[in-house]
Amino acid sequence: MWKLDKDKKVLIVGLGLLGGSYAEALTDEGFYVGAITRSRESIDYALEKGIIKSGTTNVEPEYVGQFDLLVFCVYPHVFLDWIEKYQGYIKPGALLTDVTGVKRSVVYPIQSILREDLEFIGAHPMAGREVYGVQNETKEMFKNANYIVTPTLKNTKDGIEACMDLGRLLGFRSVKAISPEEHDEMIGFLSQLTHCIAVSLMVCKESEHLVDYTGDSFRDLTRIAKINESMWTELFYMNKDELLLQMELFSEKFNRLKEAIKDEDTDTIHEIMRLSTKKRKLFDINKNEEHNNDNREGKKEG
Amino acid sequence: MWKLDKDKKVLIVGLGLLGGSYAEALTDEGFYVGAITRSRESIDYALEKGIIKSGTTNVEPEYVGQFDLLVFCVYPHVFLDWIEKYQGYIKPGALLTDVTGVKRSVVYPIQSILREDLEFIGAHPMAGREVYGVQNETKEMFKNANYIVTPTLKNTKDGIEACMDLGRLLGFRSVKAISPEEHDEMIGFLSQLTHCIAVSLMVCKESEHLVDYTGDSFRDLTRIAKINESMWTELFYMNKDELLLQMELFSEKFNRLKEAIKDEDTDTIHEIMRLSTKKRKLFDINKNEEHNNDNREGKKEG
Repeated sequence: MWKLDKDKKVLIVGLGLLGGSYAEALTDEGFYVGAITRSRESIDYALEKGIIKSGTTNVEPEYVGQFDLLVFCVYPHVFLDWIEKYQGYIKPGALLTDVTGVKRSVVYPIQSILREDLEFIGAHPMAGREVYGVQNETKEMFKNANYIVTPTLKNTKDGIEACMDLGRLLGFRSVKAISPEEHDEMIGFLSQLTHCIAVSLMVCKESEHLVDYTGDSFRDLTRIAKINESMWTELFYMNKDELLLQMELFSEKFNRLKEAIKDEDTDTIHEIMRLSTKKRKLFDINKNEEHNNDNREGKKEG
Repeated sequence: MWKLDKDKKVLIVGLGLLGGSYAEALTDEGFYVGAITRSRESIDYALEKGIIKSGTTNVEPEYVGQFDLLVFCVYPHVFLDWIEKYQGYIKPGALLTDVTGVKRSVVYPIQSILREDLEFIGAHPMAGREVYGVQNETKEMFKNANYIVTPTLKNTKDGIEACMDLGRLLGFRSVKAISPEEHDEMIGFLSQLTHCIAVSLMVCKESEHLVDYTGDSFRDLTRIAKINESMWTELFYMNKDELLLQMELFSEKFNRLKEAIKDEDTDTIHEIMRLSTKKRKLFDINKNEEHNNDNREGKKEG
């Protein structure tokens, strides 16, 4: 029976912002944490800061073979390559997990090529910051974030539980298990579609002269328009069918509102706005994000 | 020569969130501030809090006639009605301004019916909160906001300067003058389009089960989806031509990105994302909104 106790040694593959934050949280919890990453500088930084006990830039059998839990914090295609090349080094019975933002196109390919004596369970820590690199790591970013585990029929009860324990140990606010399919639909809508909207809005106009007039609305909608084009394009392609469906759905709603404005169809506009107001309030109630009072809420333009 | 000195008495018409915040700021600056509003409760609250010296729920000639500067903080159609009915009560030489979020359809109609011995200069304080009512007033909300004056050929140099002085006195971060046409294009894009996007996104799906998985992206994009349907529908209609143009523009960019994703046209996607990243960074540089460092920025999904 696999259990995430402190005898387990954890290897972080890819020591960037997320990998570094995992390392910090797990080291603080008393685990032995090692790391493999491309940059010697990142290893040195993490060793000096004490968030890893050992680290290397070379993937070697003796080093890899000592770990019980491997967390892959790398690009999806790098993860697939790594498993193909180096899975022979991994200790029998080890548990593998990842942090990739799409799941169907990672979980099924990896599980289909993985050795029978290893187990991989996909996970998506929905946390991030607008900066990169292990130098910016902080386990603080997990506090208000969600951790999603996406098991399949290939996974064991113990493996799933251990992976959820990992999310809890890291300090995530909420830890949940859903299918890779549910995950990808949800992320296509909540995250990928929103980035497509933000990016499209940001490139609409020459904006230099607009900066002076920009209020919170535009800032809120474009905050995520600063985007790493390589990572996001890869994630978009890996979830292309779902993302395109979500984009169609949004266009449909947007066009319905546009037609209603064109026709001055006040009933339809009011109905849409009342529905959006009601739905958005759910978020406040659940997260106490904003200060509520008994007044009817709304927001002035600007 | 009209100058905004402290001998001038200021009348706030419509004592809500914005009117109340104007009253507080101007009273603190040593002005005599009066108010006319529909609710006796609002007057009583403002008197007790000391942000107005006098107030009434009735529009009477003796009361109105004592003021040198009138600030209309009411719905556009209420403003037009008021001027038609009561402009005879206003002191000759008085200056009028407003807070309406659209300008062409307010400024020209008002100026065309206004007495020759009065002057109206449109203004748009781009500040707001997600709550209503004088009980929520605070001049703090002007601190990081823009104040826009929209003069026409009917306005005098002194009048324009006085109106800009008002914005500075209220404590706005930036005070600028542009034409009603420029204003309406800008607001159609920065504010009205963004609200249409937020509302459309919010009504896409049953969201109850999504709340648990929602990260910052979706929250940022839908924060303004709680919306006062009467006010916004009125503002949309009053700027309909510009808003529809801006909605078309956004759809065009959004569809271009969608097609590029469908075709896996990586060059086009990268080009769009690099442009959006570059444009959004301008906002950080200008406003120090976010912590920058030398790392390439982006934001992880979530």
